Amino acid sequence: MSVTLSATLAANEDIERRRRAGERVLHLAFGEAGLPVHPALRDRLAAASERNGYGPVAGASGLRAAAAGYWTRRGLVTDPELVVCGPGSKSLLYGLILAIGGDIVLPMPSWVSYAAQADLVGSRPILVPAPPGEGGVPDPDLVAAQVRQARAEGRTVNSVLVTLPDNPTGRLATPETVRRLAEVARDLDLTIISDEIYRDLMHDPDVPYTSPADVAPERTVITTGLSKSLALGGWRIGVARLPEGAHSLRQRVLAVASEIWSAPAAPVQEAAAYAFGDPYELTERIELSRRLHGTVARAVHDRFAEIGASVPTPQGGFYLYPDLSHLRLGGSTEITKILLEEHGIGVLPGHAFGDDPSAARVRVAVSLLYGETTEERLAALTSPDPLSLPWIAANLEFLSTGLSRLSPVRSRTARERGPALVPLPCHG
Amino acid sequence: MSVTLSATLAANEDIERRRRAGERVLHLAFGEAGLPVHPALRDRLAAASERNGYGPVAGASGLRAAAAGYWTRRGLVTDPELVVCGPGSKSLLYGLILAIGGDIVLPMPSWVSYAAQADLVGSRPILVPAPPGEGGVPDPDLVAAQVRQARAEGRTVNSVLVTLPDNPTGRLATPETVRRLAEVARDLDLTIISDEIYRDLMHDPDVPYTSPADVAPERTVITTGLSKSLALGGWRIGVARLPEGAHSLRQRVLAVASEIWSAPAAPVQEAAAYAFGDPYELTERIELSRRLHGTVARAVHDRFAEIGASVPTPQGGFYLYPDLSHLRLGGSTEITKILLEEHGIGVLPGHAFGDDPSAARVRVAVSLLYGETTEERLAALTSPDPLSLPWIAANLEFLSTGLSRLSPVRSRTARERGPALVPLPCHG
Repeated sequence: MSVTLSATLAANEDIERRRRAGERVLHLAFGEAGLPVHPALRDRLAAASERNGYGPVAGASGLRAAAAGYWTRRGLVTDPELVVCGPGSKSLLYGLILAIGGDIVLPMPSWVSYAAQADLVGSRPILVPAPPGEGGVPDPDLVAAQVRQARAEGRTVNSVLVTLPDNPTGRLATPETVRRLAEVARDLDLTIISDEIYRDLMHDPDVPYTSPADVAPERTVITTGLSKSLALGGWRIGVARLPEGAHSLRQRVLAVASEIWSAPAAPVQEAAAYAFGDPYELTERIELSRRLHGTVARAVHDRFAEIGASVPTPQGGFYLYPDLSHLRLGGSTEITKILLEEHGIGVLPGHAFGDDPSAARVRVAVSLLYGETTEERLAALTSPDPLSLPWIAANLEFLSTGLSRLSPVRSRTARERGPALVPLPCHG
Repeated sequence: MSVTLSATLAANEDIERRRRAGERVLHLAFGEAGLPVHPALRDRLAAASERNGYGPVAGASGLRAAAAGYWTRRGLVTDPELVVCGPGSKSLLYGLILAIGGDIVLPMPSWVSYAAQADLVGSRPILVPAPPGEGGVPDPDLVAAQVRQARAEGRTVNSVLVTLPDNPTGRLATPETVRRLAEVARDLDLTIISDEIYRDLMHDPDVPYTSPADVAPERTVITTGLSKSLALGGWRIGVARLPEGAHSLRQRVLAVASEIWSAPAAPVQEAAAYAFGDPYELTERIELSRRLHGTVARAVHDRFAEIGASVPTPQGGFYLYPDLSHLRLGGSTEITKILLEEHGIGVLPGHAFGDDPSAARVRVAVSLLYGETTEERLAALTSPDPLSLPWIAANLEFLSTGLSRLSPVRSRTARERGPALVPLPCHG
């Protein structure tokens, strides 16, 4: 077990430090939804402010029933007794990895915290790439081969984690890949942990969505939360749906929960119970959010594509994962440093997500482009053409300019000149 | 590492099940403050409901500054940079035990979660009793001997934990014991984790209070929260004060925090920042709470003393730790079972706190005696004579009756009769 400050945290602290020092830095490194909280949720929180008891470790019965309804409406009939709530789906993922034990298969790349959490509990991740063009689900054939090999070496492998749709790639695995992974998991008796926190933010809701719980309900745990779809990251609320009959796993997760975080904040649970009921005013808000995320993510995608980067079209959430290896400026650490120090563009290096450090892949989060104030963000949310809003247009222009100067020769010149972090003149 | 449902959780679930089934059970097993939230805190929470960003892992700067002020006013000058916030002091204790690593010395008995947390992270606790008549601080001479022996056996021992005042015994270690422990910790290079969550609930505020941070500031971490003093258990907010210069420990705790819980709920942080400022309306509330806890705890103490139990006079918080071994009814599991099943009195067995299972010691929490409704609890809080309030008097009477029937002969008869859980006629 090692305990070190995550690369994400360090990168974000560096960006914040530069911004405080007056540098112009486009903050594309942080997975915050970048939108205001809906007034209906604020009202619910205020109304529940008298709730000060510890309450059940699994979460209040109203919240568990609401989360069960949320999944049932999405085709997964759910018993509230199999719902466990936590202060963020992150804490539930940690609890699950600890409670399930053994080593874990993770997609490569995948969200930074999975591997860090595994490390904290002494579980060794097995990193497996997704099939070409996909993201978030490790290639099922490779999973089978690598788990068999690990077991032949005496390792205990108990679980495989998937992200649907994915962070960092923004891609959704195909139903076929999900089905094949479920088969492999069944053959190898692996628990599937399915992180579906971006599910309601699929840019095109008509793209078919298959959860492993649809095809392997007996072994799939789903986690989700309200941090992304309703921008409640700071409220810390997540829910997990355990497989039918998983009473022992439930008891183990509750034991971990009761010794680390007890339960989510009680007033937040009340507001979350309302949200998981899918009331019209909130589903409308999510619809607007998904449209904004998609519009801006595609615009940012185009800007990376224009300079010749290889970048999969994002399908959900607010991330892209461009590959800038064609510029031959080094691996992900080097390109991240050049983007930040020479062009004021803050992103995260792919190696933080478990990717090959020699590839110049970076994760780009677009959600902090929507504005600096609540007013700007609300305007972005409701605008029929958010890209034309002056602050978003300026951010995209700043990005374009920085990227256009990224050619190997120019960058070398720029490095000779020293940092160029003042706002750049607009052109084309 | 083992993951099992805690004895506390199981006991509380059993009590709740019996109550739902219509049995009259006096709930003396739960460490909830049993009081309503102050309206000023509700207002603060509602006003902060727009806060939805993740915010810094260490906690918002306003909260860290307020917590630093809280300690500074109590004689411990504190740099806000050394304050780390979490969703409850429980989560911070887990993070500290994980971040510090190695085995840990705990008082015997001590709060159930310390040993359970150590177990989750693979740290083996060394249980050391307090000096006679004290509680919460392991006997310094025994600590020195046991740590030296453990190290001679090749174990790594890095820390010692104290609770001031104590849960379960309700006792406050003397300044002399704290000073001696600090010396031992210095000699053996142990970090001291001082859980001071009941500090503001000392029944007599004139009793001298010495924190290990007063005498060993270079190696003492203090944790506290608002769950007990302001009855905010369900809001999940705790703060830790790290020693001056503990930058490496701070980074490690933040790394753990960032991978498990991120930060406390942002609106709760705002309300907590107000509370840690010690505003008059809240210090007045705490003063009333401490008076109520003390009055009822002493009344319950007297009822146990009347039947010949050996029970230290509680000094802080809302717990007592009677020893009923004189009845010769078995160890702590047996006496707990008899109290619940035959007399409707729900307590926790001492062995759950790491105590010798053969001793008939139990932990009694008095805070759920104050009433079932907000109105009753507020009346208890402001009454000059809370023991005369009908519902509290009835609870105490029920307790007295149950205890008076605990003699070995009567209990044997009672067991032959089967459970006697209907309300008992009042007498004497």
